[in-house]
Amino acid sequence: MKIGILQLNPVVGDLDGNATKIHAAALEAARLGADFCLTSEMALTGYPPRDLLLYGGFVDKARIVTEKLALNLKDGPPLLLGTVERNSTGQGKPVFNCALWCENGTISQVFRKTLLPTYDVFDEERYFEPAPAATPKGNILEFQGKTIAVTICEDAWNDKDYWDSRTYSRDPLDEASASNPDLIVNLSASPIFLGKQKLREDMLGSVAKKYSTQLVYANQVGGNDDLVFDGRSCGFAPDGTLVGRAPGFVEAVHIIDLNTLSANTIAEDDFSQEAETWQTIVLGTRDYVQKSGFAKVLIGLSGGIDSAVTAAVAAEALGTENVIGVLMPSPYSSQGSIDDSLELARSLGIRSMTLPIEPIMNSFETTLSEPFKGYPVDTTEENIQSRIRGNLLMALSNKYGAMLLTTGNKSELAVGYCTIYGDMAGGFSAISDVDKTGVFALARWYNDTIGPNIPEAIITKPPSAELRPDQKDQDSLPPYDILDAILELHIEHHNSMHQIVEKGFDQETVERVLKLVRFAEFKRRQAAPGIKLTPRSFGTGWRMPLACKREL
Amino acid sequence: MKIGILQLNPVVGDLDGNATKIHAAALEAARLGADFCLTSEMALTGYPPRDLLLYGGFVDKARIVTEKLALNLKDGPPLLLGTVERNSTGQGKPVFNCALWCENGTISQVFRKTLLPTYDVFDEERYFEPAPAATPKGNILEFQGKTIAVTICEDAWNDKDYWDSRTYSRDPLDEASASNPDLIVNLSASPIFLGKQKLREDMLGSVAKKYSTQLVYANQVGGNDDLVFDGRSCGFAPDGTLVGRAPGFVEAVHIIDLNTLSANTIAEDDFSQEAETWQTIVLGTRDYVQKSGFAKVLIGLSGGIDSAVTAAVAAEALGTENVIGVLMPSPYSSQGSIDDSLELARSLGIRSMTLPIEPIMNSFETTLSEPFKGYPVDTTEENIQSRIRGNLLMALSNKYGAMLLTTGNKSELAVGYCTIYGDMAGGFSAISDVDKTGVFALARWYNDTIGPNIPEAIITKPPSAELRPDQKDQDSLPPYDILDAILELHIEHHNSMHQIVEKGFDQETVERVLKLVRFAEFKRRQAAPGIKLTPRSFGTGWRMPLACKREL
Repeated sequence: MKIGILQLNPVVGDLDGNATKIHAAALEAARLGADFCLTSEMALTGYPPRDLLLYGGFVDKARIVTEKLALNLKDGPPLLLGTVERNSTGQGKPVFNCALWCENGTISQVFRKTLLPTYDVFDEERYFEPAPAATPKGNILEFQGKTIAVTICEDAWNDKDYWDSRTYSRDPLDEASASNPDLIVNLSASPIFLGKQKLREDMLGSVAKKYSTQLVYANQVGGNDDLVFDGRSCGFAPDGTLVGRAPGFVEAVHIIDLNTLSANTIAEDDFSQEAETWQTIVLGTRDYVQKSGFAKVLIGLSGGIDSAVTAAVAAEALGTENVIGVLMPSPYSSQGSIDDSLELARSLGIRSMTLPIEPIMNSFETTLSEPFKGYPVDTTEENIQSRIRGNLLMALSNKYGAMLLTTGNKSELAVGYCTIYGDMAGGFSAISDVDKTGVFALARWYNDTIGPNIPEAIITKPPSAELRPDQKDQDSLPPYDILDAILELHIEHHNSMHQIVEKGFDQETVERVLKLVRFAEFKRRQAAPGIKLTPRSFGTGWRMPLACKREL
Repeated sequence: MKIGILQLNPVVGDLDGNATKIHAAALEAARLGADFCLTSEMALTGYPPRDLLLYGGFVDKARIVTEKLALNLKDGPPLLLGTVERNSTGQGKPVFNCALWCENGTISQVFRKTLLPTYDVFDEERYFEPAPAATPKGNILEFQGKTIAVTICEDAWNDKDYWDSRTYSRDPLDEASASNPDLIVNLSASPIFLGKQKLREDMLGSVAKKYSTQLVYANQVGGNDDLVFDGRSCGFAPDGTLVGRAPGFVEAVHIIDLNTLSANTIAEDDFSQEAETWQTIVLGTRDYVQKSGFAKVLIGLSGGIDSAVTAAVAAEALGTENVIGVLMPSPYSSQGSIDDSLELARSLGIRSMTLPIEPIMNSFETTLSEPFKGYPVDTTEENIQSRIRGNLLMALSNKYGAMLLTTGNKSELAVGYCTIYGDMAGGFSAISDVDKTGVFALARWYNDTIGPNIPEAIITKPPSAELRPDQKDQDSLPPYDILDAILELHIEHHNSMHQIVEKGFDQETVERVLKLVRFAEFKRRQAAPGIKLTPRSFGTGWRMPLACKREL
């Protein structure tokens, strides 16, 4: 039996468009000899549709579109389609997350998701009623003499032999094992974090081996807001070995031949942290900008490494002709920063323009001279500069119809080393989940592998916001390697202050950093969306109270 | 038996501070003759602590503080304390939402919440493992010869006889009924929406009657970020009648005497929409500002009704001496708007200052003349003005240490009739869940009941953003009564375009409004937090995808 994995990049909410894409891919799979094909989880709606699911009209339309798709595929291959279904039982949440079996022009079987992730960026208990208690054959599909267990994403992630602790009491794989399946299929919408594919392949391989079945895993690809799905759908032999893998970060119709497992292809991939980061943020930026209906972007070029990397990402994602770099020097900008930015624009091949901000600074100074009388100069004056730049960039964005990309990294977003409505202004952020240390590593990797387009001076000079004379980041912050290590422990591993100190960090430094993180919460609440890359990013999966006492 | 309800206003995360407050209130309850007392849900942590619960150190500290509190109350009354408890079973979510029975200096019994709301603003499945399957006496407390069923908030909200459809399969009240309780207690953290107390009293009364038991309901009071808890804890007789109610919107130690139900007091209350709105936004604004560590606020005064109402709220919440109104007239500002703003400031008794923005506008125009060459004037120029004002207000905020309140209403936030980083700038919004029609009604109610402090001209003149000559809101938007009716159907009732048109609204108007709502999603993502007043506000309970196709 040959299975066609339809690894597609859906637009969230675009039911008709996604159905058209699935239809074409199914026909392509048939041409490649597939006996049946399957999509990723909720391929029809795109994942995650979030509160669109609270609109009954949306869910009902998904059903109508599916019926039409099934009919259109009457003469094509059978399709196992990831979608949603209204819960009409009169009890529980409004929707089921499900896979529908479409064969001979009709929908003939439904498989509902049992385990509903509700942590980090996932909110599935908000929308979905789980599959009812296990019944014999409840998630079993019989096709061409094969017994196939149908699971949806999280359903495969609760094996008691694999995990030290489990999130759920039920295990759909264990429930299905009573039917001795020949094959487990898993429809997923599994967003990337760095290193996740290794975990997936290890876990799925162990499950295939445990039940001694073949296993086929179909994942979504593409960026939807803060989440990037890396594809890399794959297949496993009953001994747990990986026997096929679709390419990462691109759409693919990938065939897994269950008869001659050795005939399958395993797409080459680069699992290094920098390569995964680069591919994720390029795809995530391209999809966010284009799915929002934009072609062009604007980036403020400061001469620093964050805006340089963001510009390189944008040039790769959208084409150099669609990126405009804007220099907005103040009297505190060094000539080096201006030269480096111009050199960067030349090197990347993007257009640049220069708008000095001193005249506007002066007009603010005059207007505010009376209300500021008697108050010392402080960070207020720095923030004004930053917000002048934000206003100029947004004006260009409005006038040109180009989305403004904001350039802040995770370290500065964590400690609030950024100005709300200033350098934080923008529609999207490419590197908000890359810490400063990671941005440097990425820039070097980029120059070695793709560039060299980022001028060396940008990478080697000490970071500075250049909002006052001779300012350096390290005047206000601990060295970035220390800062980033503390932040990772606190943000990704939920370490408290005491736990971090126990690991050997200086107590005063840790206290200062955690206080900065706490105080910057109000800025993050109003930050632009950015791409998740770590197990815990600032974004939809970071939900902190604001007006609180927070001693962690 | 006399029960002391401790209706308190906790600071989220302030375990020590909240424990001190609970301790003092318990002693006060004892002085008033309480045999035992109870708090609201999670009174120790404050509700909702959100992702603080993902920090094991925080949850462990809650246990330590509870043990100390129990010990400190050794000679005081027994206490049923709403708090959290680490899940040490090795399976499931990290925490239990629970009530702990503290008597004779120790914690002697634990009651866990069964039903975990995960919809709208609630995320309880994200953190909490539900109580295990029902056991005899599982949620029963025996005290002084009484059998008491202990429930936590949502546990009481799933009665199959009361609701047309149910969210959960379990019903903790039904489970407890096997023990024939004399009394049901319910520890709640139930945030207000307009009219909710009527629903609570009706539903809780019906439950008391159904099981023929007394019922005591203890609710939290105070504002925590976007949520305001209105208190109004109450008690019911076994025939379902309301026999006692604590006052709304203030802390109270309220005694319910179960022996002589007729002896209890029912605090007077005003359930009119305007009175509830006013009390909610005053309390929510005061608590957000003060719990954030601020005393003073700034408000941009435009001469319009939104900034006028916001200023009145702030003056009431924080004291007139803590409110500064800032006029920032442009050449498009009418003399009427300037006069009205000055009159408003005088009438409210708040300080005002005037900063004309024309010189700054000119400096932006000069700086942008080259990049704008050949482009027609459009809304870009309007947004620049708005962002100049945002920058000035934030500069004053930074310099004075005063929080900027943003003044947008729900109608304009819905359709995007506002400028991101401009008039949307600010730390908090008082009226972002009041539609324009509601703002007018509130202003009139305020002048009739509390004021008259809002100049009549502000209420009667046609709304205008005054960003270009002779601009009126109604040039760009449908009449507000029609707009607000469409928005309510779409936002609060999840009606699709077709459903709204079927209710008699003009199709073209509905399409235009829904398109505006869709297109403004990116602005709302970066909006300041504001106070929830309706069953569905823009805020933590509104989770829409951004880069999507959204045809609802």
